[in-house]
Amino acid sequence: MSNYAKRMKTMEKQANIIKGLFSAMNDPDVISFGGGAIAKECLPVDKIREITKDIMRVDGRGYEILSYGSVLGAKDLREVVVNDLLAPKGVKANPDNILIITGGLEAMNLMCQLYIEPGDVILVESPTFVHSVETFSMFEAECIPVTMDDEGMSTEDLKAKIIKYSPKMVYVIPTFQNPTGRTLSLDRRKKIAELGSKYDVIILEDDPYRDIRYSGEDLLPIKAFDKTGHTVLANSFSKIFSPGSRLGYVYANDEIISKMIDAKSATNSHTSLLPQIICAEFFKRGYYPEHHKSLCEIHRERRDAMIESIDKYFPEGTKRTFPDGGLFTWVELPGGINTSELLIESTSNPDVKVAFVAGEGFFTEGNGKGSNCMRLSFGASTPDKIRIGIEKLGKLIESKLV
Amino acid sequence: MSNYAKRMKTMEKQANIIKGLFSAMNDPDVISFGGGAIAKECLPVDKIREITKDIMRVDGRGYEILSYGSVLGAKDLREVVVNDLLAPKGVKANPDNILIITGGLEAMNLMCQLYIEPGDVILVESPTFVHSVETFSMFEAECIPVTMDDEGMSTEDLKAKIIKYSPKMVYVIPTFQNPTGRTLSLDRRKKIAELGSKYDVIILEDDPYRDIRYSGEDLLPIKAFDKTGHTVLANSFSKIFSPGSRLGYVYANDEIISKMIDAKSATNSHTSLLPQIICAEFFKRGYYPEHHKSLCEIHRERRDAMIESIDKYFPEGTKRTFPDGGLFTWVELPGGINTSELLIESTSNPDVKVAFVAGEGFFTEGNGKGSNCMRLSFGASTPDKIRIGIEKLGKLIESKLV
Repeated sequence: MSNYAKRMKTMEKQANIIKGLFSAMNDPDVISFGGGAIAKECLPVDKIREITKDIMRVDGRGYEILSYGSVLGAKDLREVVVNDLLAPKGVKANPDNILIITGGLEAMNLMCQLYIEPGDVILVESPTFVHSVETFSMFEAECIPVTMDDEGMSTEDLKAKIIKYSPKMVYVIPTFQNPTGRTLSLDRRKKIAELGSKYDVIILEDDPYRDIRYSGEDLLPIKAFDKTGHTVLANSFSKIFSPGSRLGYVYANDEIISKMIDAKSATNSHTSLLPQIICAEFFKRGYYPEHHKSLCEIHRERRDAMIESIDKYFPEGTKRTFPDGGLFTWVELPGGINTSELLIESTSNPDVKVAFVAGEGFFTEGNGKGSNCMRLSFGASTPDKIRIGIEKLGKLIESKLV
Repeated sequence: MSNYAKRMKTMEKQANIIKGLFSAMNDPDVISFGGGAIAKECLPVDKIREITKDIMRVDGRGYEILSYGSVLGAKDLREVVVNDLLAPKGVKANPDNILIITGGLEAMNLMCQLYIEPGDVILVESPTFVHSVETFSMFEAECIPVTMDDEGMSTEDLKAKIIKYSPKMVYVIPTFQNPTGRTLSLDRRKKIAELGSKYDVIILEDDPYRDIRYSGEDLLPIKAFDKTGHTVLANSFSKIFSPGSRLGYVYANDEIISKMIDAKSATNSHTSLLPQIICAEFFKRGYYPEHHKSLCEIHRERRDAMIESIDKYFPEGTKRTFPDGGLFTWVELPGGINTSELLIESTSNPDVKVAFVAGEGFFTEGNGKGSNCMRLSFGASTPDKIRIGIEKLGKLIESKLV
């Protein structure tokens, strides 16, 4: 019974982090800055009820929606991706180059199926999204970190590491990055696309936050600069529609999409049709622009509350990022505080009861890197709760410095 | 750009069969005995509309359904599996040992993640379900066929091949098997569970058709005879609820479920929640018994129409199975007719326009085995269409024998 494949062992560390992450999200007494969820007030419950009532009829599309669908996904939703999500961002795509997937993360799984043999190198940002690293580890990839600064992944270090490691793939979250909230500059986006083409390396651009921007100006995705098909754009509906629906998409060239269809077919045949059609209708009925506006307003307010509170309540010497969008800010604490230990106390101490994600798990290099860092998500709490939670957390941190 | 992982090559043959299968299903002018879909008249369109209207409210479960859920799946649906689907079949399970998956096929993918290294042997029935073989091939497993007769997989041959090949897994579809419609006898079910325990081999029991039986008596699943946890039961809601919803489940012991949670988390986080909750409500509101009755009546009629028509219109020397349930009958033609060639003609000839699945693709052994066989599905066509289609097909076959 213990004869598991090796990959179950290589993924164990990340799997345990993810399990811990999910369990903290489920305690209703805790103010959680842990998960990566949007404000529940932004979930379009009423609109989905209305849409389902209309489409789910015997004389409507009911039978079609409950029957087997195409591996590529519902055409309606692929057209929404092309016309409503990619075209306004400067990307011209054909609906047949869009694959609908079961949540954004499935892109990482399918891309690994296409490309990764055990031991292959994937270059990742330092720090990077731990859930994607869980997937890469399941495929026994070796994740090598590339340094970051306020403009995102360093293209100098990236180039050096492409030459040194001959990676199969570069994994980059260019906009309001998870976990740091940083955004890759336009110049670097262009350079990364060029490096992919020049060195024949796949650039996996994971861009789920790009559509929720609260300040600053939109930047073209890396994919917009790709002239050879080496960049694959992955995105999710979790931040702009609903995470529980598990909808995402991949945009890639003909050859890669054709292989992805095979991998998707052998993973779960196709993505559930009802959420696909509801989501497509949501856009086709013109509900998205207003929804998007309110989504950005609500999250801008939460971001501002969190940034102001950190500046007010966290001790001197604290460093934090200022995210122009997305859900996260990244905090570096002074005084050698270990955030993994802090988390145990902050969630269990009845006077605090605040959750966040400790920084260490986001660094693939290990060696205690990021042990004084934390990822704080402002998506799931109201501005008032954010202020209360950050004040409590700040006081706990202060108490450690005395 | 051509630097794909080896698995993309090993799965190519099956991937092409699957692609062909799906494309034939989409031609509206063709009477299709090809796909494995149930009658569209059985899809609970109205009930789903009613349920969604009730649950998708801001003051109801709307927010919960659109938010991130647990990797294991919605508790409501796991309880339905335990109480409404497993208990009546003699299997006592704990809801925490049920993992909800994105369609039945995902079980094969996750089980391969847990167990299969390139080159590992999976023993399969001869013939077996080509879509599962696609998944096994993506994991670079070597599929070794085990002989079958009218009682299903031969346990003598199975035992001999377990000893010879030391497989990681035995893949078996015990009830109304795909593609043959045959059912594994009770005695053999018991023996297969025992062989798994004795030789430390995982028995992957894929049982999506078991709940749609039209004649004969229910048999306990292999899992009911498993004393050591070596048997893993996979099932689907595609035949009893709706294929487009992509819902299935796995029942396994604590250790295996815990590993499957990791693999599922790294595949797509969790299964879409809306279909899960709708499906659970469908059972909880008591709609299933009547739905199930009508499902069986409609398909019994279709099976009978197909069997009678084959006996009437197919040439002498034709062999066919009599399925007590499920969706398929398996036909062996006389006179050396090649069904792959026949299929091209039967779908393109304007006087015929009938689709089926050629037998060869279901045999992992290759060498032209099954080239005179076909899988005929009676799920998606009315009895009248079945009679017309089988008559046309029978005439075409007759014309080849002259």
